[in-house]
Amino acid sequence: MKIHQITIKDVARELGVSISTVSRALKDHPDISPQTKKMVRDVVEKMKYKPNAIALSLRNQRTNIIGVVVPEIVHHFFSSVISGIDEAAVAAGYNVMFFQSNESYEREILNIQSIINSRADGVLISLAKGTKKFAHIRQLIDNNTPVVFFDRACDEIETDRVIVDDYEGALNAVDFLIKTGCRRIAHFSGPQHLQIAYLRKRGYITALEKNGIKVDDDFIFECDTYEDALEITRKLMSQPRLPDAIFTVNDMTAVGTLNSLKAMGFNVPNDVSLVGFTDGLVSSITDPLLTTVSQHGFEIGKKAAEILIRRINNDCDSLQPITKVIKTDLVVRDSTRKL
Amino acid sequence: MKIHQITIKDVARELGVSISTVSRALKDHPDISPQTKKMVRDVVEKMKYKPNAIALSLRNQRTNIIGVVVPEIVHHFFSSVISGIDEAAVAAGYNVMFFQSNESYEREILNIQSIINSRADGVLISLAKGTKKFAHIRQLIDNNTPVVFFDRACDEIETDRVIVDDYEGALNAVDFLIKTGCRRIAHFSGPQHLQIAYLRKRGYITALEKNGIKVDDDFIFECDTYEDALEITRKLMSQPRLPDAIFTVNDMTAVGTLNSLKAMGFNVPNDVSLVGFTDGLVSSITDPLLTTVSQHGFEIGKKAAEILIRRINNDCDSLQPITKVIKTDLVVRDSTRKL
Repeated sequence: MKIHQITIKDVARELGVSISTVSRALKDHPDISPQTKKMVRDVVEKMKYKPNAIALSLRNQRTNIIGVVVPEIVHHFFSSVISGIDEAAVAAGYNVMFFQSNESYEREILNIQSIINSRADGVLISLAKGTKKFAHIRQLIDNNTPVVFFDRACDEIETDRVIVDDYEGALNAVDFLIKTGCRRIAHFSGPQHLQIAYLRKRGYITALEKNGIKVDDDFIFECDTYEDALEITRKLMSQPRLPDAIFTVNDMTAVGTLNSLKAMGFNVPNDVSLVGFTDGLVSSITDPLLTTVSQHGFEIGKKAAEILIRRINNDCDSLQPITKVIKTDLVVRDSTRKL
Repeated sequence: MKIHQITIKDVARELGVSISTVSRALKDHPDISPQTKKMVRDVVEKMKYKPNAIALSLRNQRTNIIGVVVPEIVHHFFSSVISGIDEAAVAAGYNVMFFQSNESYEREILNIQSIINSRADGVLISLAKGTKKFAHIRQLIDNNTPVVFFDRACDEIETDRVIVDDYEGALNAVDFLIKTGCRRIAHFSGPQHLQIAYLRKRGYITALEKNGIKVDDDFIFECDTYEDALEITRKLMSQPRLPDAIFTVNDMTAVGTLNSLKAMGFNVPNDVSLVGFTDGLVSSITDPLLTTVSQHGFEIGKKAAEILIRRINNDCDSLQPITKVIKTDLVVRDSTRKL
């Protein structure tokens, strides 16, 4: 007995739309509305149509290579993510090629081009700070190459993503500072077009408001590197009104802040409490050891690679994009006052 | 007027050897003696024969991709090297794909296979601790893909290399410790089949001997990771005869040693002086700041990429393999006593 193989035609007929609409919906084409995309995916799943079977036959061959694009390889958070990706990929028999965008949109495009040329089976990407257009990501999806975002995603592309609960992580960190008696809490934030920086700042603001503390714009600085922190801390701590705590958008900024505070003769945490965000290697080397929000970078990388490998093997329960949120933890060390 | 294009036949005739001998000599084939290889290269240069012109035409097309294999991406020394490679490559219009071997010979072979499949124009590699056979490297050279070693090279393959003056770096570091009054100097070394670990230990021993200090095997441990250092330091500092200084094979081992010493109540540098080797990010974060040997990782990476790109473009003055030694510097910070 020959079983009728469901084709894209069957799906189109069932929905009363063109084959091209179904095809473009499955490729997340921008011309197709989100509603139509969802409808197509629902019908495809109901009918057990396997679009990837065709997609796979279109590709010449499997290379067992995963392409990874990170903003910076030499970065404590992405380093942990890279380790997690590597572990999951190697366990599944994949080799991993890493590219760095250096936070540049142009470099990111070149990286994606190299990955396409290398015929990688799938791509993991965390967007560069400079990336505000996404045609190069769409090109991968059009090319039937599964893409999973990690950490820095964009809303315009409907694909799988593994992200951090940045808002809640920041809220809990600042809430903890307030519980230890801090009231004048400064925030060193990242560029606000980056979702992670935006959400961490929102978490900071919400924690203040929740505790009836006025948000003071003079205590908020765009400052997300070690070098900037050295200088901005010096400026901040030379003003008449001093903060009693600083919450930074990442650990390296916290280390710059700490070194600058120590150089000026301030005691951490007695004069100023300090909380970072990352929980990379540096946080357990500084003196005092850094209180920070653990992003579980290793877990993010591992989970993202696992989802990608399931997509490559057409082995996901659903065609709907997966969003996996990794919960953060506040790791209390010695740069904050005791409760 | 047609200029006679020198061919491999002309070279073979000039030398009175077979074409196959010339070809294998140029590919650094193990069956050809070093003397013959040198002779062939000399004649090839004298006759201005361009073997790479043929080699290049054998490759389908340029990809403008450089493949890089490092033992560990998440490593302070290799991180700096990666930045240097990246800068030189991007400046010359190349994109870089990074692979990590995780110190495994088997992974390294898979990485090289992926690089060959990706048709990279050239390869930079620092060998894994587990690599003791080199057929996979030879395969690249047979495939007309230029290879440059950086930091961890092997003597069996005659190709370009950018290495660190590990022996002299270690000698100067230990000599400095002796000048500050230390006499009982322990050494935490790496596996001795790795040339860099062997040379650093030789430098340590030579410095002791030069200063009339007896080498004491009880003060030498194979210990080259943060975790091992925590434990071995505890063991070493629980013995009746204590060292007054510890020289470690790399910075992360020094950080583990430092944290262990502090946890046991020892003062650095008053009780024990400490010198690392790398000059990575961590050395300027620890408390006290770490005295260490700067390997100039960024410069190593940059120089290695520049040599590789010249080879890819057939733009080197000589076909003889280049060995570039990057000089180290002792960076004196606060983990050693004052002179």
